[in-house]
Amino acid sequence: MTGSAPTASFTADDYRARMERAARAAADAGLAGLLVAPGPDLVWLTGYAPTAATERLTLLVLAAGRDPVLVVPTLEAPDAEKAVGAPALTLRDWTDGKDPYAATAALLDGSGRFGVSDNAWAIHLLALQRTLPDTSYAALTEALPMLRAVKDTAELELLTAAGAAADAAFEEIRKVPFGGRRESDVAADLAGLLRRFGHSQVDFTIVASGPNGANPHHEVGDRVIGDGDMIVLDFGGLKDGYGSDTSRTVHVGAPTDEERRVHDLVREAQEAGFGAVRPGVACQEVDRAARAVIAGAGYGEYFIHRTGHGIGVTTHEPPYMIEGEEQLLVPGMCFSVEPGVYLPGRFGVRIEDIVTVTEDGGRRLNDTTREMVIVE
Amino acid sequence: MTGSAPTASFTADDYRARMERAARAAADAGLAGLLVAPGPDLVWLTGYAPTAATERLTLLVLAAGRDPVLVVPTLEAPDAEKAVGAPALTLRDWTDGKDPYAATAALLDGSGRFGVSDNAWAIHLLALQRTLPDTSYAALTEALPMLRAVKDTAELELLTAAGAAADAAFEEIRKVPFGGRRESDVAADLAGLLRRFGHSQVDFTIVASGPNGANPHHEVGDRVIGDGDMIVLDFGGLKDGYGSDTSRTVHVGAPTDEERRVHDLVREAQEAGFGAVRPGVACQEVDRAARAVIAGAGYGEYFIHRTGHGIGVTTHEPPYMIEGEEQLLVPGMCFSVEPGVYLPGRFGVRIEDIVTVTEDGGRRLNDTTREMVIVE
Repeated sequence: MTGSAPTASFTADDYRARMERAARAAADAGLAGLLVAPGPDLVWLTGYAPTAATERLTLLVLAAGRDPVLVVPTLEAPDAEKAVGAPALTLRDWTDGKDPYAATAALLDGSGRFGVSDNAWAIHLLALQRTLPDTSYAALTEALPMLRAVKDTAELELLTAAGAAADAAFEEIRKVPFGGRRESDVAADLAGLLRRFGHSQVDFTIVASGPNGANPHHEVGDRVIGDGDMIVLDFGGLKDGYGSDTSRTVHVGAPTDEERRVHDLVREAQEAGFGAVRPGVACQEVDRAARAVIAGAGYGEYFIHRTGHGIGVTTHEPPYMIEGEEQLLVPGMCFSVEPGVYLPGRFGVRIEDIVTVTEDGGRRLNDTTREMVIVE
Repeated sequence: MTGSAPTASFTADDYRARMERAARAAADAGLAGLLVAPGPDLVWLTGYAPTAATERLTLLVLAAGRDPVLVVPTLEAPDAEKAVGAPALTLRDWTDGKDPYAATAALLDGSGRFGVSDNAWAIHLLALQRTLPDTSYAALTEALPMLRAVKDTAELELLTAAGAAADAAFEEIRKVPFGGRRESDVAADLAGLLRRFGHSQVDFTIVASGPNGANPHHEVGDRVIGDGDMIVLDFGGLKDGYGSDTSRTVHVGAPTDEERRVHDLVREAQEAGFGAVRPGVACQEVDRAARAVIAGAGYGEYFIHRTGHGIGVTTHEPPYMIEGEEQLLVPGMCFSVEPGVYLPGRFGVRIEDIVTVTEDGGRRLNDTTREMVIVE
């Protein structure tokens, strides 16, 4: 997957402004430029999403003192020319059999330090390192973690709409029968609902029932859902180029006292994480706030992942709400708050909203009930 | 996309044998080991395909004198344990907040040279380079281009079956109406047919009509196909974990003399490329044989891509049939032979079969007619 281009929300001038902002941020960070591979960075900067990332080099070069250049295989140049951001950059195409790294190197300061997309392929990075042995490189999320993190008004509107669509899918899925059906059946319903409510791409539709819920990365299987099962639902994708991601934990029939207690605990933890969100607070404080609630109840060892991740043109990006992340929250950042408790062999609970940082706190982009929903 | 695991074709012993073969090949190439990222290399070596490649490190370490180790996020360990190849390796999981690179470095010769998957993410490679500054790296297709290139009997059967399924899709698509429908409608038919004939993943369904056919990477658009259009169809995906990829060029109604002449020329070129296939011939000779036919007719400048690419657990991999590729053909290699002529603004023609190298020549895995098919 190389990302999905937003439909009609942005203009060439928007992309030009983003590229200028990125080039300035790179210079401020002491970088000689940015090397942007197909994927979310390229989509965000240019609106261009090639059909596939391949061994053929496609690379946006944002170097100090130069206009943006997109190095692109000749075969793909016609597609690149159609990107909304194309008027804001120069295409430099190369044909099979030629050396695209030499062509790229000619655009670069041979002793500079460059930011490179996290997901750039090793084969390309190694070839650049070999072509320009005195250059050095830093992954973009390490060098410029904030590059895509703070959303502007148009982006916030798109994320809000994506969140509302995911919520609409939840309101429908809670009405379908769960008991007696396979997880994969419910997941197919969820995917259909996300598309029905405007998603062009479904990234994940986790339906983790009973003991499967205790594996936070269980996606979906053939397990037949039974009466008395807790079920973690975690679903999202892209709508108009921007992401959704929400989790709710539902139950078939009446829960046990312990199931209710754990669900209430996770809900409190999610509330605490959300409550910690405001400008100037470090990301790790959001994690700590949620984790403290769960640890305080003696379930700390069962909360085995970080509390959240950013969202934008992907459903999974910086900033991360994790111990050790000292990045301060800034209005316009958007990320998940999704604590969970996972009891091996038994059940799991996760509750997740996307939250955006406002001037004085946080605002949820998901707002279906966080009480345990009983399904059939 | 991180690859698709074959269903039930291989055992843990098969994967163990592949890992041993890979480790030996690495040692023979002077490498201290191989670092394998999620994607086709990992699928081929272990049968494991994580849901997504992410910033969380998953890496198979095949180092000299060690049993294989899969470094994997704790969250994903339960999925990794289910991989068919899991009994042939040791899982080493790491939890959010810990340093997976230090854990990986402890498995490696700190001054060694390692092969690394082409598609390993830059963020992971840079972290390893930083953690072990005296190591060096080579992309796997450069260091060991033949690693996955020679298919065994079971793999050939799967590729043959995938090719037959793609051919079955062509036999059906030639019966559907083309004229008056959008390219995207025909592409949707093609995708449905590939799935109907057993594909679990559709990688591409190119329907490039009229002038769109002159762009070899045009995928599909809203253009309404008209009477008199040439249409390049190029489609494939994965069936039971192995790839298909075939192209035919069809025509709505009677072609002009020039259209027929160009189509015949490409057919002759494809035949010449296929005819050059036998053990001991260099890959570039296949390209030269096809190209000579087209150049000889004065259309050389309109054949703007290489003649072919390998296929296996992906639809696009080494070896490449391209000028400069001196790799010799070996029985069991499988690749496309797909010359084309692209007349800008007018039309294009491409004819493509997957071919496998036999003991004394080549065998096509696609065998629908290469004559121009007239469609409605």
